[in-house]
This record gives sequence, structure tokens and C-alpha cells, in this order.
Amino acid sequence: MRDAYHEELDSISDGLVEMARLVGSAMGRATTALLDADLELAESVIAADAKINDLHHDLENRAIDLLARQQPVATDLRIVVTSLRMSADLERCGDLARHVAKVARLRYPATAVPGDLHPIVLEMGQLAQRLVAKAGLVISTKNVDKALELEQDDDAIDALHRELFSHLLDDRWQHGIETAVDVTLVGRYYERFADHAVSVAKRVVFLVTGEHAAEFVAAQEASQAQ
Amino acid sequence: MRDAYHEELDSISDGLVEMARLVGSAMGRATTALLDADLELAESVIAADAKINDLHHDLENRAIDLLARQQPVATDLRIVVTSLRMSADLERCGDLARHVAKVARLRYPATAVPGDLHPIVLEMGQLAQRLVAKAGLVISTKNVDKALELEQDDDAIDALHRELFSHLLDDRWQHGIETAVDVTLVGRYYERFADHAVSVAKRVVFLVTGEHAAEFVAAQEASQAQ
Repeated sequence: MRDAYHEELDSISDGLVEMARLVGSAMGRATTALLDADLELAESVIAADAKINDLHHDLENRAIDLLARQQPVATDLRIVVTSLRMSADLERCGDLARHVAKVARLRYPATAVPGDLHPIVLEMGQLAQRLVAKAGLVISTKNVDKALELEQDDDAIDALHRELFSHLLDDRWQHGIETAVDVTLVGRYYERFADHAVSVAKRVVFLVTGEHAAEFVAAQEASQAQ
Repeated sequence: MRDAYHEELDSISDGLVEMARLVGSAMGRATTALLDADLELAESVIAADAKINDLHHDLENRAIDLLARQQPVATDLRIVVTSLRMSADLERCGDLARHVAKVARLRYPATAVPGDLHPIVLEMGQLAQRLVAKAGLVISTKNVDKALELEQDDDAIDALHRELFSHLLDDRWQHGIETAVDVTLVGRYYERFADHAVSVAKRVVFLVTGEHAAEFVAAQEASQAQ
């Protein structure tokens, strides 16, 4: 009975890894669609979000079914509840990739992002994709050190986000209001996507160590300082 | 034993109602702070978010504790899992109120929102506050009809949001880029706040009827058409 239980738990974990893969791919393709003004690619990202939502609902149902049938306690209970949250985080990442694709579609055949901002937005998109890929790896390996790296990666996204704002607010900005609005929203979508990826990794830290990520780091630093 | 259990469940529900009250109040005060450029009020909203987060974590711990000790199944299990999600929605509403307050603080002593947009932003803020108040009522009364009203209220927020954008994108916009960025973000915060309030109400519909809100409405319409 318990073996079947752990098999189901593993299959939920596999589902989360698959979701991470799908939303990472979606954000990568959304970024390309945005920078290349590729309508077809944008449409495909928008359409593919339904599959991510389905996977999310399927995982939720399986996790709740597992709670009802197996009534896990302690660590096992924590794993199932945390899976529900990770699934919600990843589902939201999918929405944010779709939002980026929708900006691309809205401005087609023009590109929403001016050429001088392409390098920043490209890097934000690549980092966001790497963050969620790493989050997927963290889910499957439960590697706490790797999980803690995501906060630093997120700092890099935040720095790029600030750089984007410094362009927006520069007196020499010459792309008008509509583009400023698009760039503001797109910047926010990448930032939120990265936040959710970090949140997934933090939940794994909590699962493995029983401590919230910040507490875990503080405790480690305290023991190293002794 | 079961009585103690239902008391705990009621107390979790009370906690959610209290969270809805707190985030509604926070968004109301954040809107005032934003439109009046009231730094003190903005600071108080920012500081008070910690209390909302504490309440969220307390509710989460109590819900997980309840799962472990009482091992509910069927409807009871669904109530506890749904409570976890509603708590997460409301915690996020608190974050969004804090974000609005932070925009107020950032631009102090100036007002971030130009005078001609005050009526729209005021109405968005008031509607957002009413939506979450209604969500709180729905949590305590489990009133499905009231819950379904929230989608219409949300349509009103979306309409105001579009109106805000039409001002932003009007050729006569004369408030510069920084203000456009602020207004874009603030508009997004209200919209997301309202989305989470609607999400809370939809979860109650699912709890009560066992159907997702859209399915429930479709089934009702089908039975009325017969």
C-alpha cells in the first residue's frame, strides 16, 4: 500500500517537473515571439497554456485524491500540500508567459520592444527560462544548494528590471507612451515569473529541511561562524 | 471529536473573513494614500502587511495541522484544501495593496496619479475594496448567488482598467513617461487584486456546489432553458 503511495507521490513530482519544462519553454518562445514580432509563435504560446492549465488541474486532483485515500501525516502530508502550491506557482508562470505572448500579438506586425531594449529583454527572458529550469531540477533532485542559488539568479533579473526602468525614465526616451506601457508590463511579467520560480525552489528547501529558506541560510551561516 | 473538528474549521473560516477585512481596508487606505499623497497612511499600509502575512501563515499551519490530526475526507477535505488556497489569494491581495502604497510613497510629496485620472482610480479602488468585502461575506455565508455577482463586479473593474489605458494611450497624454509607468502598474495592481477576490468567491462556489463556477452557471442556465 505504501509503495503504491510513494509511486503516486513520485508521479506528482514528475508532473511538476513536466510543468516546469513546459512553462520554461513557453517563456522562451514568448520572448522570441516578442522580440521577433512572430505572430505564429505568439499564437502557439497562447494556445499551449491550456495544456499547462490541464496539467495543473490534473495534478491538483491527484494530490487531493491522495490526501483522501492515503491520509498522509508529517513529512508525507507536507510533501502533498507543498506540491499543490508548487503546481499553483507553475500554473501562474504559464499565465505570465501567455501575457508576454499576448503583448507580442497585440503589436504585430510591429515589435512591442524597441531595438535598443532587445538585449535587456532577451536576457530577462533567458534568465527567467533558466530559473524555472533550475526549479524543475530542484523538484526532481531535492538539491537544497541548487535551490538556494535561485535567489541570486533572481537578483540578476531584478537588476535587469531596474535597468529597463532606467531606460524608461531616461529623459531621452523617444518611443512614446504606448511602448512605455508595453515595456512596463512585460518587465513586470518576467519579474513575477522569476518570483514564482524562486517560490518553487524555496518550497523545496522547506520540504527538505523543515525550515523556511531564509531561516535555513541564517542557521547555516550561524553554524559556520562558530 | 467531530465537534472540536468543526469548531476548528469554523475558526479557519473566521480567519479568512478577517483576512478579507484587513486586505480590503489596506486597499482602501492605499488608494487614499495614493490620491492624497499621504505618506503616513502609505507607510501604515506597508507596515500592516506583515500582520496579514502572519495571519496567512497561521491559517496555513492550522489547516495543515487539521489535515494531519483529523484526516478529513470528501467535503471536509475539500474545505480545508480550499481554505489554503483562499488564504493564499488573500495574502496576495495584501501584497498588492502594499504595492499601491509603495507607489504613493515613492512619489511623495507629489501624487503619482494625475488629477484627471483620480475619479477612475478612486472608483477602481472602491470597487476593489467592495469586491473583497463581498468575498469575505461569501466565505462566511457560503452564498453562491452573491459569489457569482463578483464576476460582474470584476467586469466593471476591467472596464475602468480599459478606460485608464485609453487615457494613457491618448495622443493628448501630457503627464510624461514616469507617470505613465506608475499608472500602468497601479492599474495592474487593482486588476490583480480584483482577480484574487473573484478567485476566492469561485472557490466558495466550488465548495458549495462541487462544480467550478462556469460549469455551475452553465448548468443553471441549461435547467432554466428547459
